Amino acid sequence: MEKSKVLGILGGLGPMATAYFYELVIAHTVAARDQDHIDMVISSKATTPDRTAYILGESADDPFDVMEREAHRLVTFGAEVIAIPCNTAHYFYTRLDAAIPVPVLNMVRLTAEKAVAKGCTRVGVLATDGTVETDTYQLACRAAGLECVVPDKAAQALVMQVIYDDIKSGMPPNMAAFHIAANQLFGAGCQCLILGCTELSLVKKQGLLDERYIDSIEVLAEAAIVACGKTVQGLY
Amino acid sequence: MEKSKVLGILGGLGPMATAYFYELVIAHTVAARDQDHIDMVISSKATTPDRTAYILGESADDPFDVMEREAHRLVTFGAEVIAIPCNTAHYFYTRLDAAIPVPVLNMVRLTAEKAVAKGCTRVGVLATDGTVETDTYQLACRAAGLECVVPDKAAQALVMQVIYDDIKSGMPPNMAAFHIAANQLFGAGCQCLILGCTELSLVKKQGLLDERYIDSIEVLAEAAIVACGKTVQGLY
Repeated sequence: MEKSKVLGILGGLGPMATAYFYELVIAHTVAARDQDHIDMVISSKATTPDRTAYILGESADDPFDVMEREAHRLVTFGAEVIAIPCNTAHYFYTRLDAAIPVPVLNMVRLTAEKAVAKGCTRVGVLATDGTVETDTYQLACRAAGLECVVPDKAAQALVMQVIYDDIKSGMPPNMAAFHIAANQLFGAGCQCLILGCTELSLVKKQGLLDERYIDSIEVLAEAAIVACGKTVQGLY
Repeated sequence: MEKSKVLGILGGLGPMATAYFYELVIAHTVAARDQDHIDMVISSKATTPDRTAYILGESADDPFDVMEREAHRLVTFGAEVIAIPCNTAHYFYTRLDAAIPVPVLNMVRLTAEKAVAKGCTRVGVLATDGTVETDTYQLACRAAGLECVVPDKAAQALVMQVIYDDIKSGMPPNMAAFHIAANQLFGAGCQCLILGCTELSLVKKQGLLDERYIDSIEVLAEAAIVACGKTVQGLY
């Protein structure tokens, strides 16, 4: 069995999405016994300041310093590749990648590239206000040669309700609200929708969404397994 | 919101049980937003040598040195309380607890105490050969004032099949084999059975077991939440 790299997970953003990402990496690594799995170290820093609130100027608490410190701790712990299972935090990707001496996987770029590989030309993005207003996915999609559509203001407010009022609060997702936003994007000609918030990945985990959705957390899990030198099973 | 302690999880023994433990801690912490959750750091050291193989003398690879080093790294990372979601590893509990400068929760002792709190006087234990042959639960149960029964040799072999050939190999559990062992213990007068291996907790997670089973991983999750200064919801 080849020696795999140690995966560092910069997590807690939020914690349940991190737990799901960790589970996905394990479930989709080809392994016949414990010792075939990837060694990982996870910082689940739930108290990291809210990313969207800071990005939108609603809070002065800067999450970057906490993320940078935790990422350095992961490297000290032995991490050789870093994954951040939070799309909104990818607003800070370039600064973080520059500050950290090991490769940091770019979930947003990888997800846009996955949409291209699936044959999409026009995608919709369901994400936080922080991700949408900073054009995080819009820029990555353009770089990948994709048209990108986001919900209008009213539908985006529904997406935020599902993320914050439901999932981050430990409640079941309001699927009626979710589908109003999703149907708007399908109605605008999108062939597939990117789940561009790892809290929304938890909706897909419950089996509530079909194959037209590209789940950013699944894309990141696949990339992490490969980057650590292991073989992927059961994804895509 | 009170400042909670940082939980260190000495994990990867196996990895899927650790992911489940992490999920349980999150799901059962009273929290209305990400920042209400416990900050955690997890070492998912899947390549730690097999505990049962070492304990039974089938392998010279000593898992203790790896566990001790990872536990020290967790403390360096900021862990103030340590949880080990692996019953077999509790064979090394006393040495590890003595070596580490922060409290290490004792899952085996806590689970025996939970059985007493539930009103049991005679419990059965489903666990690995390593846990059974070292009397790990037998001693903890005696200290808690409980009678303790383990499967006979043939039934114990079935328990090991479910743990190693099924769950650790990523296969569905053979429930017929599981129930042969379980029914032997109920037939011996046990009022409840301790799931004394966190891989068996994954069987309960699938909704396949009733309330007569005391799940050591749930007991550890409850104790970890309390030890970190948070409030538990939805367990017991």
